[in-house]
Amino acid sequence: MTNMLAVHLEHGVVSLRDVPIPNRPAGLARIRMLIAGICNTDLELQRGYYGFSGTPGHEFVGVVVEADQQDLVGKRVAGEINLSCGVCEWCRQGLGRHCPTRTVLGIVQHPGAFAEYILLPEHNLHIVPDSIPSEHAVFIEPLAAACEVLDQIQIPKGDRVAVLGDGKLGLLVSQVLAAHGAHVIHYGRHAAKLAIAAAAGVQAIQVSADSKLPQAEFQYVVDATGSPEGLRAAVRMTRARGTVIMKSTVHGEVAIDTAGIIVNEITLIGSRCGRFEPAIQLLEQGSVSVSTLLSAEYLLSRAPEAFAEAAKRGVLKVLLRNPV
Amino acid sequence: MTNMLAVHLEHGVVSLRDVPIPNRPAGLARIRMLIAGICNTDLELQRGYYGFSGTPGHEFVGVVVEADQQDLVGKRVAGEINLSCGVCEWCRQGLGRHCPTRTVLGIVQHPGAFAEYILLPEHNLHIVPDSIPSEHAVFIEPLAAACEVLDQIQIPKGDRVAVLGDGKLGLLVSQVLAAHGAHVIHYGRHAAKLAIAAAAGVQAIQVSADSKLPQAEFQYVVDATGSPEGLRAAVRMTRARGTVIMKSTVHGEVAIDTAGIIVNEITLIGSRCGRFEPAIQLLEQGSVSVSTLLSAEYLLSRAPEAFAEAAKRGVLKVLLRNPV
Repeated sequence: MTNMLAVHLEHGVVSLRDVPIPNRPAGLARIRMLIAGICNTDLELQRGYYGFSGTPGHEFVGVVVEADQQDLVGKRVAGEINLSCGVCEWCRQGLGRHCPTRTVLGIVQHPGAFAEYILLPEHNLHIVPDSIPSEHAVFIEPLAAACEVLDQIQIPKGDRVAVLGDGKLGLLVSQVLAAHGAHVIHYGRHAAKLAIAAAAGVQAIQVSADSKLPQAEFQYVVDATGSPEGLRAAVRMTRARGTVIMKSTVHGEVAIDTAGIIVNEITLIGSRCGRFEPAIQLLEQGSVSVSTLLSAEYLLSRAPEAFAEAAKRGVLKVLLRNPV
Repeated sequence: MTNMLAVHLEHGVVSLRDVPIPNRPAGLARIRMLIAGICNTDLELQRGYYGFSGTPGHEFVGVVVEADQQDLVGKRVAGEINLSCGVCEWCRQGLGRHCPTRTVLGIVQHPGAFAEYILLPEHNLHIVPDSIPSEHAVFIEPLAAACEVLDQIQIPKGDRVAVLGDGKLGLLVSQVLAAHGAHVIHYGRHAAKLAIAAAAGVQAIQVSADSKLPQAEFQYVVDATGSPEGLRAAVRMTRARGTVIMKSTVHGEVAIDTAGIIVNEITLIGSRCGRFEPAIQLLEQGSVSVSTLLSAEYLLSRAPEAFAEAAKRGVLKVLLRNPV
């Protein structure tokens, strides 16, 4: 067997290709994909926002089939998505995810996880504890992104935090903050999605475009709406000297009232990928529920349908399974 | 004498009025204005951005003529501009400048300093040391705003900081940061203004709209341009995990690329008024030069001409003097 199935994304079209199984350079592990998750970023790549062409996918769990480190072989792993140089100032600080010459699994010049086999540096891999099923382990990457908030700012236990947006990332963020001990108030548009937050012990408030949101009330507001209006609402909801955590990107530029930010001395912090360790720990402890975020599962060979499903309104996580 | 001269600003027109000298409520001091400075905010009020109508002016030095505290009478003072309630959570933390029910001298519902007499709470006043001439003391308020940056973020001595914009506030910020021990690189459009920064030991770089600015290079960037493009350039010049200090407002909304902020996990901090103590100390020590920022001085009775002069391109600080 020298070929494999891989998803190909180009000009907004998701197709399947039969491609050679990639050679394994030294230092990299070859991983057989078990389950991968479709992220909003994948849908943005499909919309053509970044001129992407290639195999997408960066949320996965797989089994190492070949590696320099023999003790990795046969292990079930999740993988950090940034492939960094290892020698620059960022890498030496353990912040390879900001390495200026990095490539990124399934996003920037490194073939992604929506394929039968994946190559990743061995030091990017984290062994998944047996207690975490693969359908949950596939959430390690987005959960790590949610945990990043707590690596960036200190939120005292018991403090009130508003989370805006009830998509997948918003629901992970509110659970992470609740598990941390914050009093989370989750604002969203969809009753069904907010029910997931409520089940995790979060105070959920359904709002519409016309709702009057609290003004200048929260010390911490996380914007996970992915919408320009969401970010503007987050700024208005933040009290003087408070912090807005920008957790979701919006394509193109967002018009922001800078006077409000300056007069109230508000801080805005961009937040992207996070360390995997706290995410694995939360799943192991059962402190975060991810099974409630699963909407559908497709075989890898049905990736085009899976992408179409993931893009539907109200759908949360759609998985791709590589059959054994 | 029961009347006084006061500047009146309404619908963009600066005029002079003969108005009653205001009664002094308990707790407030009546101050005879000596010298006041025209700030960019005053010019924005004139442009009608905030529907302002009344007496503007918030940068001043004056002599206390009447007060509850007898030891204040006869003293030369500068005054903090936020009139706060004194009892709310913010006020109890010493952050009355964020008091939600505050009025603001010459900006929000409290008659400003461009008049023969000013009323301010006695606890807002700071006695000006004899070694600081009034023409310099009038800079205490904007200098405090420049010092605010160092109250908000820790910049290690020797670290490189970019300051964008060579207006009055930018020139104060770069001097404050240089006095703190930072390696300041000041980008501006005007050779004459940059020469002021250079004379203060700051590395000054003249740029034009077409200049290629450094990308992702600075850990700290202060935007004092007052322009949307300046803020966008500041974000692009900031390295991953770096901080943009937003020191100048732009009227209306500014379109910002949020993806760059999130991918690079950049922090933006709004920065407004500051404590007066460090500003007075810098002037007393002679660590900051403000005389180089003086462009012109007018009698209070010639305020309309002074406003016209202050609005001219290339003009820095214009003062109004209340003749003795």
